[in-house]
Amino acid sequence: MANEPLRLEATALLGMREIAFGEDLARAIADASASRPPSIGDVLVVAQKVVSKAERRVRRLAEVTPTAAARELAAKLDKDPRLVQVVLDESETVIRAERGVLITRTRQGYVCANAGVDASNVPGDDVVTLLPEDSDASARRLRRELAELLGARPAVVIADSFGRPWRVGQVDVALGCAGLRPLDDRRGQSDALGRELSATVLAVADEAAAAASLVRRKHGREAVVLLQGLERFVTEEDGAGAAALLRPVAEDLFDARSDVG
Amino acid sequence: MANEPLRLEATALLGMREIAFGEDLARAIADASASRPPSIGDVLVVAQKVVSKAERRVRRLAEVTPTAAARELAAKLDKDPRLVQVVLDESETVIRAERGVLITRTRQGYVCANAGVDASNVPGDDVVTLLPEDSDASARRLRRELAELLGARPAVVIADSFGRPWRVGQVDVALGCAGLRPLDDRRGQSDALGRELSATVLAVADEAAAAASLVRRKHGREAVVLLQGLERFVTEEDGAGAAALLRPVAEDLFDARSDVG
Repeated sequence: MANEPLRLEATALLGMREIAFGEDLARAIADASASRPPSIGDVLVVAQKVVSKAERRVRRLAEVTPTAAARELAAKLDKDPRLVQVVLDESETVIRAERGVLITRTRQGYVCANAGVDASNVPGDDVVTLLPEDSDASARRLRRELAELLGARPAVVIADSFGRPWRVGQVDVALGCAGLRPLDDRRGQSDALGRELSATVLAVADEAAAAASLVRRKHGREAVVLLQGLERFVTEEDGAGAAALLRPVAEDLFDARSDVG
Repeated sequence: MANEPLRLEATALLGMREIAFGEDLARAIADASASRPPSIGDVLVVAQKVVSKAERRVRRLAEVTPTAAARELAAKLDKDPRLVQVVLDESETVIRAERGVLITRTRQGYVCANAGVDASNVPGDDVVTLLPEDSDASARRLRRELAELLGARPAVVIADSFGRPWRVGQVDVALGCAGLRPLDDRRGQSDALGRELSATVLAVADEAAAAASLVRRKHGREAVVLLQGLERFVTEEDGAGAAALLRPVAEDLFDARSDVG
């Protein structure tokens, strides 16, 4: 086995239908998987957008009354004050609000633009999607429902595209996961020459999300990607979830605002 | 074609030999690819460590005399003062130096721990590797040499594992690339429902590095990974390289230190 090269294959699930608000997402995925059902050890990476739509994590801007603070911020950023209100409702802290960009730490602990609130791929002009309340819980539920529908029990990752400091462009990261070890702690293992490796904890779930992103055309119909070849990270139990990927603010040495010296 | 699912396959190159200081890396990769030569449209993701060794980007700690500043920092961080000196030599700015962690912006513009200076997988107890001087130039050279040796001309990405703010664990990113579009700018394209997408610029080269990382066992012998299925991002010309992924400090709204308000 040590001589077998590791191999990863990512394939977009063909034939995923458009997910309506409140629709049964597990059923839609099972239907789209009929011709190639996932087996044990497989990972399904599901775009956050369809999870949010299935869970009715949406808001109608027409029903939002912005506060004075939201109106002020919106004027500064040249944004819709109702959208800014929704972002603030989803956020714990505003990290940055400049040049039309609003970066916050969400109530779930993610740091991203607009708290993940998004208007693309959502039917209805004034409707926006919010990130799932608890993406790990969503992933666990989806995994359980898929197991019932498919017989097999693939791991589930819920992914979204986030920007990041210092580097241009977005990469997909794991908002939630179930049945996949989110981190691969390699500290203490020796390298090919028998020396201890430098501190390396691989963010497996984030890399799985990134790999899946490369086979998405970024249209709603490619919301689910099947990953094969990650068996060694797939577990029977649902595990710690992507919550394990959120660095506690006080321990974040990369963040200049965390004054932990 | 629109009905064909996109498919990505990542396979570690078996039989890569240990790369010695100054060794011909293109030749070693060509030898290891003999049974399955890459074709046009393929991408080879090469671990930074073997590039640095081939380019003799190494330093012997015994030959380093730490300055007073390096000794002071080393005492605070409980690190070898000679190693700290090497990190400072490779750096433009110290971003953070606390709890044994030294994060800097390197002369090349990366923000990472220890300026990418690393002792794992390097023979000789007091030898450390440095990041390549110019990883895009390294990628271009490797691509040209591989084309001569193999006939085919795969794109080349040079990858390393970086930590990041706010999230636990490391992900592989592209230090350099040649022949791969580093960014896929999807702004202005419409989504499945005909609306304009929210601002999305996909960091293709970073996601390619991350996907490759998932088939590495983190041993020196799996330094090269073949990616197939990214043809739409592969270009005849070498292109902008991974330099396009470095966000100018003054434009970095994610970074609280960049006061651009």
